[in-house]
Parts: sequence; structure tokens; C-alpha cells
Amino acid sequence: MPGPVAAGATPGARAAMQTRPFAIAIHGGAGTITRAALTPGVEADYRATLAAALRAGQQVLAADGPSLDAVAAAVRVLEDSPLFNAGRGSVFTHDGRIEMDASIMDGRDRRAGAVAALTTIRNPIDAARAVMERSRHVLLVGAGAEEFAREQGLATAEPEYFHTALRWEQLRVARESDRLQIDHDAPASAPAGDGKYGTVGAVALDRDGNLAAATSTGGLTNKRFGRVGDSPIIGAGTWAENESVAVSATGSGETFIRAAAAHELAALVKYGGRTPQRAADEVLATVERLGGRGGLIVIDRSGEPVFAFNTEGMYRGCACGVSAPEVAIYR
Amino acid sequence: MPGPVAAGATPGARAAMQTRPFAIAIHGGAGTITRAALTPGVEADYRATLAAALRAGQQVLAADGPSLDAVAAAVRVLEDSPLFNAGRGSVFTHDGRIEMDASIMDGRDRRAGAVAALTTIRNPIDAARAVMERSRHVLLVGAGAEEFAREQGLATAEPEYFHTALRWEQLRVARESDRLQIDHDAPASAPAGDGKYGTVGAVALDRDGNLAAATSTGGLTNKRFGRVGDSPIIGAGTWAENESVAVSATGSGETFIRAAAAHELAALVKYGGRTPQRAADEVLATVERLGGRGGLIVIDRSGEPVFAFNTEGMYRGCACGVSAPEVAIYR
Repeated sequence: MPGPVAAGATPGARAAMQTRPFAIAIHGGAGTITRAALTPGVEADYRATLAAALRAGQQVLAADGPSLDAVAAAVRVLEDSPLFNAGRGSVFTHDGRIEMDASIMDGRDRRAGAVAALTTIRNPIDAARAVMERSRHVLLVGAGAEEFAREQGLATAEPEYFHTALRWEQLRVARESDRLQIDHDAPASAPAGDGKYGTVGAVALDRDGNLAAATSTGGLTNKRFGRVGDSPIIGAGTWAENESVAVSATGSGETFIRAAAAHELAALVKYGGRTPQRAADEVLATVERLGGRGGLIVIDRSGEPVFAFNTEGMYRGCACGVSAPEVAIYR
Repeated sequence: MPGPVAAGATPGARAAMQTRPFAIAIHGGAGTITRAALTPGVEADYRATLAAALRAGQQVLAADGPSLDAVAAAVRVLEDSPLFNAGRGSVFTHDGRIEMDASIMDGRDRRAGAVAALTTIRNPIDAARAVMERSRHVLLVGAGAEEFAREQGLATAEPEYFHTALRWEQLRVARESDRLQIDHDAPASAPAGDGKYGTVGAVALDRDGNLAAATSTGGLTNKRFGRVGDSPIIGAGTWAENESVAVSATGSGETFIRAAAAHELAALVKYGGRTPQRAADEVLATVERLGGRGGLIVIDRSGEPVFAFNTEGMYRGCACGVSAPEVAIYR
């Protein structure tokens, strides 16, 4: 298994963290991401956006804000970027539409909110949070979720906002090969610029020792039938409880659901005595046994971010305490 | 915690079970179900339908059929009855519509299928199984799920089929009090015949040692915004893996999702060394701590069914080996 991003905090920052550590980790999806597939310019764009997302979360945490706000802020930056398969950069369904899923969970009390198949909401993660905080429910889907988000006054966007030429070309290629594209897997006949989309997520620990997790996605290119993956499923794509860990997953959603990936990871830590890294590796081994691939990001109350993926690469990064954000893409 | 249905198998039947045990357990929802609320005639109807569902599953198992077929057969009987809040007896949403959810899981390989917000499919559990066996997905929702089920040739029904006077009256009362009804909780101003609806589910062990679980529901009376509860969520309302247990849950879906109830139960058995009964009790304690109520049915490879609920009653029953089905309602 690939190790975490190399620790780069200064000794002073590390010492400060030991009293009241805070940290955030993010992912922008996992898949066939190789050095050969990314031009230097595109790679720089990814790194800059990942760093911006980390800074958005870090600012919240450094100001003694809650981890819940930090993960939402980081995910919002990734949703607003056309580079990642969430929010603005969402891929197209078989019918040429956008269907976005998101979820968020608060480790303090396991409150959670999730939405599936949103079509016009600019930041699905805000809709998930509104479900958590302003409804009696956890999961809303489809037209009803859309209606709820609009009633809550969340910003919407016209179809053109979500309509990028790259995503449309990906749909054309996928339709031709009748293929579902998972995260960053490039089809054999990938158009230039392919292999650059994916679920996004964040996990964080705040100074009060509270964990939170958030995940957002546009799902699979060419998906049909109202398919919902693991991202909006509490326990599969997202989990947070202060007693164990906060987790966000990315990859072949169906196998992550069948593995109850995020909650299984927490259970391995809580009841199985595993370290977060070993638990993440074991969950990925299970996912692989079920025929899937992808990645996980994890944080516990020590504030040490953990990354695991069984793909060529995963867009990822972390910021521990006030140290400069670190990002990575390849193994 | 309430104990299981009293064991009633003959010594001979128990002996036969010890070599290659097989068993099925079912629930028809939990809630405010008291002796005072049910007339003898209505109670007899419930008992007869629960027994019929158990026999349908038992027949499959006795003929060396797979537990997957057994749980589907049992749930189908409960879906076909107007007594239970699933399939035909589904409650109405705020808009006076039907939205049904279901899921199924195979303990052999953790294959799983689920549907949410179906509106015309007669047996949602068959749609969940079709998703598992004939799609590349695990969870389909809304119009897409409906389209998939129709393409698969599953039986549909006109709105009148689902339209019972009792459910309509329940919606009227719930609308007036702007109240969401959970399972079998009767509102203060309950119309005669209320307190008689609920999620249904089944867990089974077959002679080959394979576990399976299935859950189906019409959700909450007066629900809005495409609300989805725990029933179609693999890991919350349903879980099955041969290495631990098969579980089906019923109750206040939101808290069961936040507890990852079904998978948490499996994890407590697998990693926490708990017996299924103790694990079920612990999960219900967590659900209660999160403000919820409901029940769980569990079976492991020993074939001993386990029941747990923190409500006044739970429609339930089991059939071990070839013994006559046993049913129970109250504590």
C-alpha cells in the first residue's frame, strides 16, 4: 500500500500540534492517474486546486472552527473546480444529464446528511449539510432533494455551468463503448485530457478533538437508471465518529457499498484494534477481493492523516496544524 | 431486551438441525403495538400472515434451496399483504403517493441490490434482487429504478392496488399533526385500526451454510422530499456475510443509518467477540442513544434466530428446520 504524503511539518509546528492537534486531509478521486497522462500544466492546476481546498479547510481549523465547517469548505473548493468529478465538474449520465451525490457526517454525535441525484444545486455538500441540520432526515433523493435544497435557499446553476467540453466528450466515448467509467480510469480510446475526473472528499480533526467527514461526486460517466454509488451512503463512502475515525472513500462505488467500507474501517479500529493505516489497507483488500478499486482517506484524534489506494494514483493532500499544505497525485 | 420467540422445536427436529441447520426469521415492523391496540381478529390476521411468510421461506430451505430465495419468498408474502407497510400495504407520502424501498444481500459473496422510491412495482424486493443479479449496480433510485424494474419485466400494479382506506386515513391524520409516523407508532388521535403498519424483513440460513437478508418498506407516512430511510441502505437496514451474521432492521430509519446498524451488529460479532444477541442489544442501545427506536432480527451460521427491539412490540417469527413456524407480536 502506498504511504501517506510525506510528513513535512516543521518541528515547531509538530510540537504545537501535540497539545491541540488539528488537521485536514482531502482526496480528489483515485484511478488510472499516471505521470504520462498528465501534462505539467494540467498537473500544476490539480496541485493548485488541491492546495486551495486544503487552505480553505485549514483556515477554519486554525481559527478554532469546527471540523464540520472545515471539510465542507474544502469540498466546496473542489466542487467549484471543473477539474474534479463533483459539483461543477460532474460527469454526464447516459441521458446527458448531471446527477450529483454528497454526504457529510459529524463525529461528535454522528449526525449525518446526504443527497442523491441532485441536478441543479451548485454545491451538493451544502445540500447534504442542510439535510443534516434543517430536516428530520438523513438521506433525500432526486426531485425531492432538489426541492428541499431550493427551499433552503441554496445556490443553483444553469446546465451550462456544469457543461464542460471534456465531460461531454467522455460521455460520447463511454456511450460508444457502452462502458461505465469509474473515477479516473481512462478508456482505451481516451480523448486527450481524459483520466482527470473523480469523487472528492475531506476528513478533519479540529482543536476540540472533533472529527468530521464529507464526500461529493458526479458519479459515473454514462450511468443509467438513477444509479447511486457509495458517496451519499453513510457507512460506505463517508463515516465519522469521535470514538474511532473520520473516513471518505472514492472508487468503484458498488464494491465500497458491499464492503460497507467507511464503517468497516471504523469498526476495525474500534473493535479490531487496528491502526487507521492497517484498517484502511484491510478495507481496500476487501474491496479488491470484491472486484473493486479506489482509495480512502482517514483521520483519527491523533491528527495523523492516512491515505490508501489500490489504483495508479489518487489526487490527495493534507495540512497538519499550521504547516503548509502538502499534495500528491501518484504513488 | 426482549428474548427471542420461545424455542418450540421438538428434540428430533433440533437434532436434525444440528447436522445441517437451516432457519428463517422475519419481522413485520416494530412500534407501539400493544394488546389493547389489536382486536383478536386483527391479531389473528397478523399471526396468519407472519406464519405464511415463514412457511414460504421454510419451504425453500427445506428443499435445499438458497437462503437468498427464502428471504425473498418470505418478504414477498409480507409485501403482498395490506397489513404491513411494504409493497401493497405501503403508507402514503405527503403528496399522497407511494414510495417503496427494498434491499437484499447474499452472505456468500456480499452481492447486494437495492431500490428506493419505487412507485408502481408490485414487489420491490424482486426489483432489489434484479438490481443485484442483472445490473452492474447496487442501488438504483426513483424514476430510473422504476424504468429498470419495468425493463426487467417485473409486475407492476395500478395505484388502486396500493390504495387502502386505512393508509389514506393515516396520511390525513399525520398531515393534520404535521407529523412523520415511524413504523407502528400510533398518533394520539389515531383512527381505529392504526398502529398496524411497518417495515418488513427476513434473514435466513440455508443447508449450505449461506446467510441472506432482505428488507422492504413503504417508509414513513407523510414523508417528503424523496426521504429514504435505512431499509435500502446496505449496512444500515440490511447486511449479510457468511463470516458473521445476516441482519434486517426496522424502526426510525435515520438513527439506524447514523448507527450503521446492520453492519455495526456484524462488526461487533466479527471483531468485538459479541454474541449475536449481545451485539443486537448493543446496537439498539446505540440507536436509543441517538434518539431512535425499532428492532433487529439476526441469524448466524448456528441457525439460532435472534430478536431485539426497544419498542412495545415487533411483529416477528421464526422457523427452525422443519419445525412449525412460531410467531410473536408483544414483548
